[in-house]
Amino acid sequence: MKIALLGYGTVGRGVDEIISARVPQVQVARILELPDRLTGPRMTSSYEEILDDEKIELVVECMGGVEPARTYIMAALAAGKHVVTSNKAVVAAHFEEFARAAQAAGVGLYIEASVGGGIPWIAGIEKARRIDEVTSFSGIMNGTTNYIVDAMRRQGAEFDDVLAEAQRLGYAERDPSADIDGIDVANKTIISASVAFDVACEKDLPVTGIRNLTKADLDLFAKRGRTVKLLGRGTCRDGRYAVAVEPVAVGEDSLEACVPGNFNLVTLDATTVGELRFYGQGAGSLPTGNAIVQDVLDCATGARRPTYDFSRELTYDPTLLRADYVFRTTAELDGEEPFGEGAYLVRDLTAEGARAILSEALLADPTSFMAAVMTKVTG
Amino acid sequence: MKIALLGYGTVGRGVDEIISARVPQVQVARILELPDRLTGPRMTSSYEEILDDEKIELVVECMGGVEPARTYIMAALAAGKHVVTSNKAVVAAHFEEFARAAQAAGVGLYIEASVGGGIPWIAGIEKARRIDEVTSFSGIMNGTTNYIVDAMRRQGAEFDDVLAEAQRLGYAERDPSADIDGIDVANKTIISASVAFDVACEKDLPVTGIRNLTKADLDLFAKRGRTVKLLGRGTCRDGRYAVAVEPVAVGEDSLEACVPGNFNLVTLDATTVGELRFYGQGAGSLPTGNAIVQDVLDCATGARRPTYDFSRELTYDPTLLRADYVFRTTAELDGEEPFGEGAYLVRDLTAEGARAILSEALLADPTSFMAAVMTKVTG
Repeated sequence: MKIALLGYGTVGRGVDEIISARVPQVQVARILELPDRLTGPRMTSSYEEILDDEKIELVVECMGGVEPARTYIMAALAAGKHVVTSNKAVVAAHFEEFARAAQAAGVGLYIEASVGGGIPWIAGIEKARRIDEVTSFSGIMNGTTNYIVDAMRRQGAEFDDVLAEAQRLGYAERDPSADIDGIDVANKTIISASVAFDVACEKDLPVTGIRNLTKADLDLFAKRGRTVKLLGRGTCRDGRYAVAVEPVAVGEDSLEACVPGNFNLVTLDATTVGELRFYGQGAGSLPTGNAIVQDVLDCATGARRPTYDFSRELTYDPTLLRADYVFRTTAELDGEEPFGEGAYLVRDLTAEGARAILSEALLADPTSFMAAVMTKVTG
Repeated sequence: MKIALLGYGTVGRGVDEIISARVPQVQVARILELPDRLTGPRMTSSYEEILDDEKIELVVECMGGVEPARTYIMAALAAGKHVVTSNKAVVAAHFEEFARAAQAAGVGLYIEASVGGGIPWIAGIEKARRIDEVTSFSGIMNGTTNYIVDAMRRQGAEFDDVLAEAQRLGYAERDPSADIDGIDVANKTIISASVAFDVACEKDLPVTGIRNLTKADLDLFAKRGRTVKLLGRGTCRDGRYAVAVEPVAVGEDSLEACVPGNFNLVTLDATTVGELRFYGQGAGSLPTGNAIVQDVLDCATGARRPTYDFSRELTYDPTLLRADYVFRTTAELDGEEPFGEGAYLVRDLTAEGARAILSEALLADPTSFMAAVMTKVTG
């Protein structure tokens, strides 16, 4: 099968490397790049050339960002080409539109690499759903923030120092906002919920990152046998569903607590199979490249032709996600109980309600931090 | 697709329940049972009836034990029927024979449910191998022994008391030898290695269980920040491979240490995807039934048609697996260093060498216990 790569950054090069070394039945025939980066005969800066080449049956979009990725994906689908993408931002924003276009053209839409890097998470959810209903999911879906929290905990270091170190090692972007403010996890949560619950997931979900997490916060939770992880999660029952992204104080003997460095851990709960968890490298050239090549092979061999019709009549109901929350803030709170130095527990809030309280607290104290306190992260 | 079940115990009933409730495209047409257990019109005690029924395209063997399971599986394959089995004992003993017969007949041999219950482990290894070489694997593959070790650790209880409780709860057999002596894990390790390394795995591997594990042993390791888990593992490099089953003293902050109750955690390491881990219910009617029904669906939809030819020219080389070992024994050892009360560390042994030392020590002290000390359980 002949394919084209759109973009030749870290991920694109990983795909090219894996295919040329290990997958003889697939050929990277064309690569779309900027006019000043055309370094070989396969490269072109004209997308029309790729679209018009009927021998190219599949397009791998690994450019990142929403535009022109969205336009290119829609054009590929309209031209009857299968699409594989690792671009969580564009899938989270336009999943329904892509799914409809793929269905209309009778081609496959493959998004494994958009969540969890090399972890077979999207295909794993789809497989579970052949038999089961997926009732909930949750996960450490961002390696950068897990690296930061893990290093803070192990080294007893402060957020800013660890972030600087992560930037030096290339684990964090120069502008780390998408990671540390939970935006990347929100995109992955929207995609996971769409696949798990078969719904065009609500995009206006409560999102809180770990920007304000301090060493003192981790110490406070450690005294209670807990540590903090940034989790995306979703639940679905009785025709309703909810999603959220927030720091969660998990037990120190939970699997989440033990996830080291920039690894990911994603969990689903389903009717007959029960709790299933997947762990691996959530980013990086080769793991993400591997996920893309697995999607390409699923397409080339016919093993898997994912289609999403989002036909379930589900209502978004943010009251489904409830927990006790700890706030560390100098702002005044309602109904709080002391939880330690400068921190307070407020019981039985919705994720949305907790986020509203935090937003209010941040106006008075911009360093305010909050975490949900949970024993079980799914269900 | 019409299928037949061989056996209607816990697993067979789980399969029947899942298919009738959730999988309309598959029909359990016949069920083989003993003459005194024929409780409905689908049931028969004549295997010939099933073999001769050309409408039955697939046979699910969930009887357990080696015979008559082996004969029935061979007959089904010879009759051109696909086979799905959850029976680790028969697959471990006759994998190569089954694989050859399935290839000759042009039918599929599906063994997902034989290792790790509802965890997509076998399909996960096969998927990784489409692109990567699997260089090593390891896992908590036996829920009973994990339940025992986990309960001993959490409750500070002795082995015999926890085993009795596990038997009462139905987590352990009345004769628990296959679980606590590592035989069940050995079967699953043989199967995993065969799939991971594409080799008819050596069956004479070093196997040590946890029968002699005491609360004092766990306390001793806890002082060093470790706990004990029964692991099956394998490694493959430079045309050679090795496998072993033994207690391993893992770090308390490892994912293995955090696996609760009767859950399983299995890990593979592969060329481009790196470390991948899968966690879930390793046994039980519905999780194992789910794995079987997934195999049936893979067959019915054509998504996956596993064939095993074991054509790689690999040499079994037990010297590949090396570690430091702790022995708790009153027997005399060579080259030992003190490790704590009554326990000794011997450095850089092969798994086979360590097993030989333990066997010798057991003659002098039948309560002797040993564990490999490892930081990373794959690689």
